[in-house]
Amino acid sequence: MRTYRLERPEIVLTQAPVPEPGPGEILVRVHAAALNKRDLLILDGAYSLPARPGVIPLSDGAGEVVAAGPGVTRFRAGDRVMGSYWPRWHDGRLRPELVDQPGCTLDGMLTEYALLDEQAAVAVPEHLGWAEAATLPCAALTAWTSLTAGGALLPGRTVVTLGTGGVSLFAVQFARLAGCRVIVTTSRTEHSDRLKALGADHVIDYTATPQWGGRVRELTGGRGADLVVDTAGPATIDQSVRAAGLYGEVVVLITRDAARDHLAISHEAYASSLATLRRVFVGNRTDLEDMCAAVAAAGLRPVIDRTFTDVPDAYRHYREGSPFGKVVIEL
Amino acid sequence: MRTYRLERPEIVLTQAPVPEPGPGEILVRVHAAALNKRDLLILDGAYSLPARPGVIPLSDGAGEVVAAGPGVTRFRAGDRVMGSYWPRWHDGRLRPELVDQPGCTLDGMLTEYALLDEQAAVAVPEHLGWAEAATLPCAALTAWTSLTAGGALLPGRTVVTLGTGGVSLFAVQFARLAGCRVIVTTSRTEHSDRLKALGADHVIDYTATPQWGGRVRELTGGRGADLVVDTAGPATIDQSVRAAGLYGEVVVLITRDAARDHLAISHEAYASSLATLRRVFVGNRTDLEDMCAAVAAAGLRPVIDRTFTDVPDAYRHYREGSPFGKVVIEL
Amino acid sequence: MRTYRLERPEIVLTQAPVPEPGPGEILVRVHAAALNKRDLLILDGAYSLPARPGVIPLSDGAGEVVAAGPGVTRFRAGDRVMGSYWPRWHDGRLRPELVDQPGCTLDGMLTEYALLDEQAAVAVPEHLGWAEAATLPCAALTAWTSLTAGGALLPGRTVVTLGTGGVSLFAVQFARLAGCRVIVTTSRTEHSDRLKALGADHVIDYTATPQWGGRVRELTGGRGADLVVDTAGPATIDQSVRAAGLYGEVVVLITRDAARDHLAISHEAYASSLATLRRVFVGNRTDLEDMCAAVAAAGLRPVIDRTFTDVPDAYRHYREGSPFGKVVIEL
Amino acid sequence: MRTYRLERPEIVLTQAPVPEPGPGEILVRVHAAALNKRDLLILDGAYSLPARPGVIPLSDGAGEVVAAGPGVTRFRAGDRVMGSYWPRWHDGRLRPELVDQPGCTLDGMLTEYALLDEQAAVAVPEHLGWAEAATLPCAALTAWTSLTAGGALLPGRTVVTLGTGGVSLFAVQFARLAGCRVIVTTSRTEHSDRLKALGADHVIDYTATPQWGGRVRELTGGRGADLVVDTAGPATIDQSVRAAGLYGEVVVLITRDAARDHLAISHEAYASSLATLRRVFVGNRTDLEDMCAAVAAAGLRPVIDRTFTDVPDAYRHYREGSPFGKVVIEL
Repeated sequence: MRTYRLERPEIVLTQAPVPEPGPGEILVRVHAAALNKRDLLILDGAYSLPARPGVIPLSDGAGEVVAAGPGVTRFRAGDRVMGSYWPRWHDGRLRPELVDQPGCTLDGMLTEYALLDEQAAVAVPEHLGWAEAATLPCAALTAWTSLTAGGALLPGRTVVTLGTGGVSLFAVQFARLAGCRVIVTTSRTEHSDRLKALGADHVIDYTATPQWGGRVRELTGGRGADLVVDTAGPATIDQSVRAAGLYGEVVVLITRDAARDHLAISHEAYASSLATLRRVFVGNRTDLEDMCAAVAAAGLRPVIDRTFTDVPDAYRHYREGSPFGKVVIEL
Repeated sequence: MRTYRLERPEIVLTQAPVPEPGPGEILVRVHAAALNKRDLLILDGAYSLPARPGVIPLSDGAGEVVAAGPGVTRFRAGDRVMGSYWPRWHDGRLRPELVDQPGCTLDGMLTEYALLDEQAAVAVPEHLGWAEAATLPCAALTAWTSLTAGGALLPGRTVVTLGTGGVSLFAVQFARLAGCRVIVTTSRTEHSDRLKALGADHVIDYTATPQWGGRVRELTGGRGADLVVDTAGPATIDQSVRAAGLYGEVVVLITRDAARDHLAISHEAYASSLATLRRVFVGNRTDLEDMCAAVAAAGLRPVIDRTFTDVPDAYRHYREGSPFGKVVIEL
Repeated sequence: MRTYRLERPEIVLTQAPVPEPGPGEILVRVHAAALNKRDLLILDGAYSLPARPGVIPLSDGAGEVVAAGPGVTRFRAGDRVMGSYWPRWHDGRLRPELVDQPGCTLDGMLTEYALLDEQAAVAVPEHLGWAEAATLPCAALTAWTSLTAGGALLPGRTVVTLGTGGVSLFAVQFARLAGCRVIVTTSRTEHSDRLKALGADHVIDYTATPQWGGRVRELTGGRGADLVVDTAGPATIDQSVRAAGLYGEVVVLITRDAARDHLAISHEAYASSLATLRRVFVGNRTDLEDMCAAVAAAGLRPVIDRTFTDVPDAYRHYREGSPFGKVVIEL
Repeated sequence: MRTYRLERPEIVLTQAPVPEPGPGEILVRVHAAALNKRDLLILDGAYSLPARPGVIPLSDGAGEVVAAGPGVTRFRAGDRVMGSYWPRWHDGRLRPELVDQPGCTLDGMLTEYALLDEQAAVAVPEHLGWAEAATLPCAALTAWTSLTAGGALLPGRTVVTLGTGGVSLFAVQFARLAGCRVIVTTSRTEHSDRLKALGADHVIDYTATPQWGGRVRELTGGRGADLVVDTAGPATIDQSVRAAGLYGEVVVLITRDAARDHLAISHEAYASSLATLRRVFVGNRTDLEDMCAAVAAAGLRPVIDRTFTDVPDAYRHYREGSPFGKVVIEL
């Protein structure tokens, strides 16, 4: 079978025999895998968790179960599954001993056939194709837990998302699905119509309105947003707090960027808000199952920018191509 | 002005001078009022809270502010408002000293002009007409708090509602609005299409399937419902618990009916569920404002069965006419 | 080694070789095991989950790790551990596939040496002896989750417990530890002083005061209790609801008794309460760890009625001896 | 009567007639009032909410009801009461229209007789003297809501408090009351014994250990604290996040100090924590009642540093005297 391996600074194609599933394992014919920012960081040697040399890249992928090892009860051949971002974190809270991640410390999904612990796999919603399913484990789940970590949102609440990255687009879709109003900030106003089609009620051009926190307050009758999904961190956190209502929440996904290694929040930003800052780190298998139930109930379709068969092309486009939606590799 | 008064066993029309708003009060030209079950109970002398003889009936109504007393800051003439079910319960938890209710211990909305404490009024969502707005304070808010009292529901969760009463129809709409799957039980299967148009995914004929709890489990892949809004009480509570999933919730709105003065839940019903039984009693002003924000964001329209100008006709139709949706009186 | 086996209607002593720990397993020299009501039900063939014939009895036990199989990371030889009631339920919510229980469908702790999945073991608080540690996995954890399932209780809240059973005594201790006021109902008023020494502020003789729900309201200035841990079910649930305050919670542990196969709650009981009825079923491994942290921080000591070395004697005393505190078997 | 007035930069003593209580008002003979940091900020013109010139200072005070106006139902002459920090915020969430504060925009408690809205008063726990009661409305309630805003804490959880200020000392007492472990950082190690007597398990000298976040992790077996009550803001927030466990919470009370007008949290601090940053702003009347119930149940006694009868002396000592505990003025 074709299998890719992380040999920094490259990802190399290798050939390997198709593995056999051991006890509790399933063998999955992977049909599609998807890229996330952490995969660029891993390739660049800049990810918080050190990657194992030679590891199979990518956390996100979906495929068909072709064989099940002894004792497997959750799946059987023919089932359509995706892998979980944290294979050992099934429910409740993350613990230090559960931090292994595919595509990093464990073999990932950029391979024709992947061996998964059956406990690390989740069924794909029926209406989704392989490429769509492959986009869910990391970015979509991060969006989902960003929206739900503080408890599900009431319909009618206002959610702010930043830009057009993978997490943000899913956050727009999920927030709309939950009956919320959605405000998106972006510099890429050429995408306004697509954002509105996904569920945005308002699009703010943050280049024209760098003090967009105040604009969010105006758009909410002075009350501010109930939730801001801050996907940028140091560059945006102060405006995110300014955008947040008195009891608003700001979900913080990033704590440094190329320019700064810390978050700074001004006293002035807090003047009109007692905003809670909450962090999420993807989510557990139960969260993934909950999200899939919502995706299935709504017939929600992930936004795919492009699909590739060539791996370097896919990485290059993801890094440089300003995609609107997910970048997928077909295997 | 025309004002109705409770003179049991009748509601009588009287004439009275238009009142003047005192400090903190607003004078409202009521355009529509709506009936709830509690209004029949009050008329019949069977309500839990003893009504004041001569009280103006009905908790639910909407109209235009025509004058504001000294110190009023929340509203001004021309504003469109509805009254709150619990005028003194603004936020947080109900307390014994806050139990006064319009149409019962306080004058209600079945009057051409009503005096309201400005703190007891809430703005009407812009897209709603008077009759629609009049339906919100009691039945809609009960549905809203039934869905949200245990925390808002995640999209993709399954909600069960019983029948076609006012609370249940709003619960269908709100559950759909929150991205939930909805299962409705009813004996009036002629309404299936209308229920599905409101948001029901499945309609169960409970006459044909008296063990509908099991049917709900089948429809949910064996998992059971996440929330059952039980609007009938003694007759349905056992099936509601059977319908509920392992961590499901059953909201209990009624604790007696004509036949029974208690709720009985069998050991067998609990065999597959650790269901929580939760109670709600309408909701506070902040809940009403939250609900109105959701109604406004979604452009949701209440279901109105019929509007009347004759009060006895309206009561008679509400009691005997098997309405599908709210019964409204125009003033 | 000495090993006991369930051969209904008896528990028989057998000899067996000391087992070897496999991958991820630990071998534990069990020093003490404790009895719970479910163990009588299992022996009587009346438990909800059918027991495997020949199974080693008892969920509760504590001992020393004497060997660790390949890949074990949580424990090593010399560690003091107890077993978890649900060996496969580590965190989050119970699922149907996780319901295996030691002493029922899995081998339990009534054996000189027990093999445990390392994930199913939890460290014993340092200050506890073997007999004390053996009492924690079922009754203490049930008390703990009863108090915490709806969120931890604020200091100053009022908790009601029923009688002097194992769960109730732990509930008294934990409620006091959390800064709550505690009211105990019992017919065994000879134990009043011991109950007060454990943490009870008031003891109600329910024989003298069968309407003890009203007495709880009196003792709480009319407000009612914040939490009632109902360990009796059909016989007490109505009074428990009467005892509960407007937003009180009643934790329901039992849903049938010898006389009745259902819970009945009168309309009248609900007249002064919107009590939530919540159910718990012991708790997961993370709950057990949380509880042990509390036990350790407070230096709390479980109440032991008697310890036995003879197994039939222990069962007989537990069933017929009206113990005040846990009944323990030393191995 | 003697009444003090804010005439910046001084507080002046004036004489005024004893007022008459109007509808819904109570007249309170104030026996003691207490100082908080905000009172220094108000005197210095540096408080976030502009004070009314001539206002009676101090939010905190306690006294005896000597007369009740028409319609008062909550209190009668002879009752012992304290004032609420937010007289108009009774329950639920703070709103912009409820921000009036005594001693700032409303007349406060530094007066022989104070007029209070009966809804703004709360009964004093019986075991407390006037000086003790006077300390509760601001600092104690801030400590209470800091500990409970994210839900009450489980017994056995670890709480970190900073220094020996009024809020911190109450936080130590309340955390201990809730069964938590308490770690205190201070540079004033001469107070270690008093801190331990109040409930501290560990005292860290932050002068000797400026990286005290790491020390907290050591003291918690690497897990980190469950809650850090950060009463200093810019100078401590980074260490507070380092001290917090994976799901720890940091309550942020201050967002600027003399040196910095923002909070900065390093990427490195977040490396081992997904800490939630939560803000609180004292608390509502219901919180105050809940706290008083806990204070009463435990017989808890506030720490008073000194009592004064001379107002300038009291302010001077509070500002310059490094008090350990509250500074109280007797009236």
